[in-house]
Amino acid sequence: MTSEILEDIKKEIMDKLPKNAQVSKVEFEGPEVVLYTKNPEIITDNGDLIRSLAKELRKRIIIRSDKSALLGPEETIKKVHEIVPEGAEITDIYFDTVTCEVVITAKKPGLVIGKYGVTSRTIVKNTGWAPKILRTPPISSDVIGKIRTTLKSSSKDRKKMLQRLGRQIHQGTKHPNDWARVTSMGGFKEVGRSSMLLQTPNSRVLLDCGVNVAASDNKNAFPYLNVPEFSIEELDAVIISHAHLDHCGFVPYLYHYGYEGPIYCTTPTRDLTTLLQLDHLDIAHREGNPLPFNVKHVQKAIKHTITLDYGEVTDISPDIRLTLHNAGHILGSAISHMHIGDGAHNLVYTGDFKYERSRLLEPATFRFPRAETVIMESTYGGREDIQPSRNSAEKEMMKTIYKTLKRGGKVLVPVFAVGRAQELMVVLEEYMRHGMIDEVPIYIDGMIWEATAIHTARPEYLSKDLRDQIFHMGRNPFISDMFNKVQNLDQRKDIVESNSPAIILSTSGMLTGGNSVEYFKWLCEDDRNTLIFVGYQSEGSLGRRIQKGWKEVPLEEDNKTKVFNVKMEIKTINGFSGHSNRRQLMDYVKRLNPRPDKVITCHGDPYKTTDLASSIHRSYKIETKSPVNLDSVRIH
Amino acid sequence: MTSEILEDIKKEIMDKLPKNAQVSKVEFEGPEVVLYTKNPEIITDNGDLIRSLAKELRKRIIIRSDKSALLGPEETIKKVHEIVPEGAEITDIYFDTVTCEVVITAKKPGLVIGKYGVTSRTIVKNTGWAPKILRTPPISSDVIGKIRTTLKSSSKDRKKMLQRLGRQIHQGTKHPNDWARVTSMGGFKEVGRSSMLLQTPNSRVLLDCGVNVAASDNKNAFPYLNVPEFSIEELDAVIISHAHLDHCGFVPYLYHYGYEGPIYCTTPTRDLTTLLQLDHLDIAHREGNPLPFNVKHVQKAIKHTITLDYGEVTDISPDIRLTLHNAGHILGSAISHMHIGDGAHNLVYTGDFKYERSRLLEPATFRFPRAETVIMESTYGGREDIQPSRNSAEKEMMKTIYKTLKRGGKVLVPVFAVGRAQELMVVLEEYMRHGMIDEVPIYIDGMIWEATAIHTARPEYLSKDLRDQIFHMGRNPFISDMFNKVQNLDQRKDIVESNSPAIILSTSGMLTGGNSVEYFKWLCEDDRNTLIFVGYQSEGSLGRRIQKGWKEVPLEEDNKTKVFNVKMEIKTINGFSGHSNRRQLMDYVKRLNPRPDKVITCHGDPYKTTDLASSIHRSYKIETKSPVNLDSVRIH
Repeated sequence: MTSEILEDIKKEIMDKLPKNAQVSKVEFEGPEVVLYTKNPEIITDNGDLIRSLAKELRKRIIIRSDKSALLGPEETIKKVHEIVPEGAEITDIYFDTVTCEVVITAKKPGLVIGKYGVTSRTIVKNTGWAPKILRTPPISSDVIGKIRTTLKSSSKDRKKMLQRLGRQIHQGTKHPNDWARVTSMGGFKEVGRSSMLLQTPNSRVLLDCGVNVAASDNKNAFPYLNVPEFSIEELDAVIISHAHLDHCGFVPYLYHYGYEGPIYCTTPTRDLTTLLQLDHLDIAHREGNPLPFNVKHVQKAIKHTITLDYGEVTDISPDIRLTLHNAGHILGSAISHMHIGDGAHNLVYTGDFKYERSRLLEPATFRFPRAETVIMESTYGGREDIQPSRNSAEKEMMKTIYKTLKRGGKVLVPVFAVGRAQELMVVLEEYMRHGMIDEVPIYIDGMIWEATAIHTARPEYLSKDLRDQIFHMGRNPFISDMFNKVQNLDQRKDIVESNSPAIILSTSGMLTGGNSVEYFKWLCEDDRNTLIFVGYQSEGSLGRRIQKGWKEVPLEEDNKTKVFNVKMEIKTINGFSGHSNRRQLMDYVKRLNPRPDKVITCHGDPYKTTDLASSIHRSYKIETKSPVNLDSVRIH
Repeated sequence: MTSEILEDIKKEIMDKLPKNAQVSKVEFEGPEVVLYTKNPEIITDNGDLIRSLAKELRKRIIIRSDKSALLGPEETIKKVHEIVPEGAEITDIYFDTVTCEVVITAKKPGLVIGKYGVTSRTIVKNTGWAPKILRTPPISSDVIGKIRTTLKSSSKDRKKMLQRLGRQIHQGTKHPNDWARVTSMGGFKEVGRSSMLLQTPNSRVLLDCGVNVAASDNKNAFPYLNVPEFSIEELDAVIISHAHLDHCGFVPYLYHYGYEGPIYCTTPTRDLTTLLQLDHLDIAHREGNPLPFNVKHVQKAIKHTITLDYGEVTDISPDIRLTLHNAGHILGSAISHMHIGDGAHNLVYTGDFKYERSRLLEPATFRFPRAETVIMESTYGGREDIQPSRNSAEKEMMKTIYKTLKRGGKVLVPVFAVGRAQELMVVLEEYMRHGMIDEVPIYIDGMIWEATAIHTARPEYLSKDLRDQIFHMGRNPFISDMFNKVQNLDQRKDIVESNSPAIILSTSGMLTGGNSVEYFKWLCEDDRNTLIFVGYQSEGSLGRRIQKGWKEVPLEEDNKTKVFNVKMEIKTINGFSGHSNRRQLMDYVKRLNPRPDKVITCHGDPYKTTDLASSIHRSYKIETKSPVNLDSVRIH
């Protein structure tokens, strides 16, 4: 079946391309059709033809030069430097001989591409090598470095994997697509360990595979992978909505237990996922509660990841076509749109989403070609979950900081590394630049810095405002010198011992460990200082206790328990959440275009998922369901 | 694990039994513990001890003699005839050397057993052979004959199967029983192809596996066996609620595709199931639309059936204990009670049930040790589904028959072979015996006779009234000479050509084929005759058209279409249904003891299942669900 499909495609390509294109080979590589030519010049001159061909075939087409048409490496490097303007600031060039690509890393990748791709095309014409262009992040990122090294060293394996996957995706459907269903494997009527299995007569796709880091035991920490319809051997694909651990933290486990298939997500999601998974392994190891997988499985996951841009339509199985859309929650977060069968059904899974413009991101996409069933999060789905506007939250924040700095105090903001930290950085940079708060050093501790580096590597995923600033006004708030990287104990001591005011962002966000607790111990007994909570503090966490007003807090120091007298000002500011609040959730469903037939709620406390479901049903007369883990819902 | 469990049981048995019991072997045979003794006398004298041991072990215990303690066959036969009184009317004796049983078939099996089993025990003491006592049905039954022959010839295979099963059931649980769920595979929001899969972390059990004989194509005729959580290899057990094809018709398919496990049902269900499955194969073959299995697979199903009496508690998997209870629907119909885990959850599946005493059967059981979830049928679950009382239906019926016979006409009742036909026979016999209608011949055509024969073989399953009549008053209505068996065309012609009045019961019940249509053609043009419908006539059937008042009916005769002028009286009498009507369904839930936490409705048109579910929720504040096929519902 695969070879038949491939033959048909080959024939169509041959018929449409000019004779002198000299196509030497056509093959599937994952979801894409790869076309090898001995005459790259002709092909690059026929861009429109290739685009219309791709549209007709409903496949993505990649052009590569036949080995015989490739220039030698040294000459190629010389040519590239001739062709690309110096302003691009190329930092690295290497050759992937498996894919016949020259990988060019540059500080200004746009200049390597050129207007409408003209520079990039010139490289092909002159060298035969297809340029793959990467950004050198303005803040260097360890994680991105590691990922690039991993991919570089596994190019051959990856090609084999993609070819195998290509055959699998294009094998044709074996059964009529007369049903589709979704099994809840985690994160239904709860928050944490999000995971669900989409099943059709022809495929099995896992949407998210998270862990509940707050769970008391392993039984509640991981998704129900023992549900009878799930088997790693039969899994076609994994989709990750975004990088938070409750959505991606258990993915390496799949590779530990024999999964050899792909992960689909955006590039920032892959990068941030890797960062958080490695950190999770670290913490679990340090706490003596090791995870059922290790670093090797994180690397295996990287090797099997296929990154997709928003809006890129991709076949992921014989009968499912995936498109990712912006979810507005964190960098790279995606709403997954799955087109099942030949028009049989369309499923939208929102993941976590924010239906409001934030400093960092555009609001979530609400328009889809078709959408019969929508599975949506309900974190703030209760009728009382209305939060102050982002604007008033910012004002409140600045007032508090202003007062603290004026009295010579320090501000400590415990914050989660990915998402809210960068949101606050953008806000602080702007207010400080406009002189609305005093210009004091802002300390960015530990992992937040690394997460920020990843943000600077993927500016295409930021809000239009930020992109305008970065690309057109040449001002990247993340690299402002207001921000100071902190990475060791000495630096921390210097900061707290200095008498001058400062703002400190540090993890963890709920004071459940990490350096935020150390800062707290140093700063809490001085009434000039302020602690600002900007995120949810879960029951039982130190953050929650302080929020409740505890004035004497026993904490461990030098292996002894010491009681700290909390004199610092304690402030909670709502409104910076990356989740839609109740009004935004309801508005989102109202605005959804087209209107869905069925809405399934997940990712929320039991009361919130059912309250949101019944409100949607009552207000919009849409069928709703609020399943529990291990329920399956037929959607078609 | 199995051997450990077996060793423990062995030890306990040895400790409790007197030394001279000389137990030579203890083994599992399916759900039972079999104990071989060299001294059967001692064991039979210690009945109370064995009973208390069984209770303690929570296992059924079977006692067999060691081969060395068995008397020779000829001597045994002589002894049996000496011990058993002549009035028992023994018709057959044979030896099952695999199970060390002497199988005694008798017209009065009660006399072979003796008061409190004294006769049976005397046989063991004197011969070593354990007597297995079967009834010679007063009406001879082909099907029961076939089943007995099949079992006789497969004794060795069956023992192997049971030993394998014994090991499987007693292997101990591998996972904690922290969840249980049910997947709808057929017969949800529809009638036909009933089937659902009960899953726990340790087992998979299929409840019913029916066909929809009225379906237009195979896709809608058979259950969704392609649901991902179902696999024949992993199936532990099949339970059949009752013999109608929409609950058992697809079971042979499982054996065709490699199932080697057991079926659990009552003895009458096994017998009637075999009858209806064979008939279904016949019809399908004749109509040129063969089924995806054949007679061999029906036989394989017989060999794998373990019959259970009502109330007999049986382990069917490492974590499920099954008890069948009377459902009041047809002979042998059962409500399945499943005790899951060690008190984790209790599930009740009603199958089809009648919560009202009928002529034939006692009303459905409503009292269970525990019952957190109840899955119930909703055939008449709509608020308008109130039917006339059984009493007034009987009166209406007799009035109509009386008038017809008085004017010299014949009465034709098209009726389904199993259930309603026997109900009517009991009614007719009583009214005629009491002289309330004229004494005319009642003709019982084709399969109805065979189904009735099976009823006479299993009188223990009939209503108390009928049992009293049969056992204590020596009067079995089914063998009254009012009833005449009809089995060929000549007999049929004689009946319709004779000028004297008569009553004819014939299949099919909706005039969709079978001899009822032939009778109709012969009788319909004479206005002295009457046609009485006592069952549901589905849309599109000839029965429905006639019910609607068609006066000219085109039908095939001698390969030509002929128009018949319907002049006979047409009458519909409701109230004989084997299903609970709406009021009875609601009353049943109200009476359920204990009160369930959750009720799941199935087996009904979409409107009826949801209407019943929402009424139960509103009236009794019980959580209800009304799933569709392919949904899974977590019950624990």
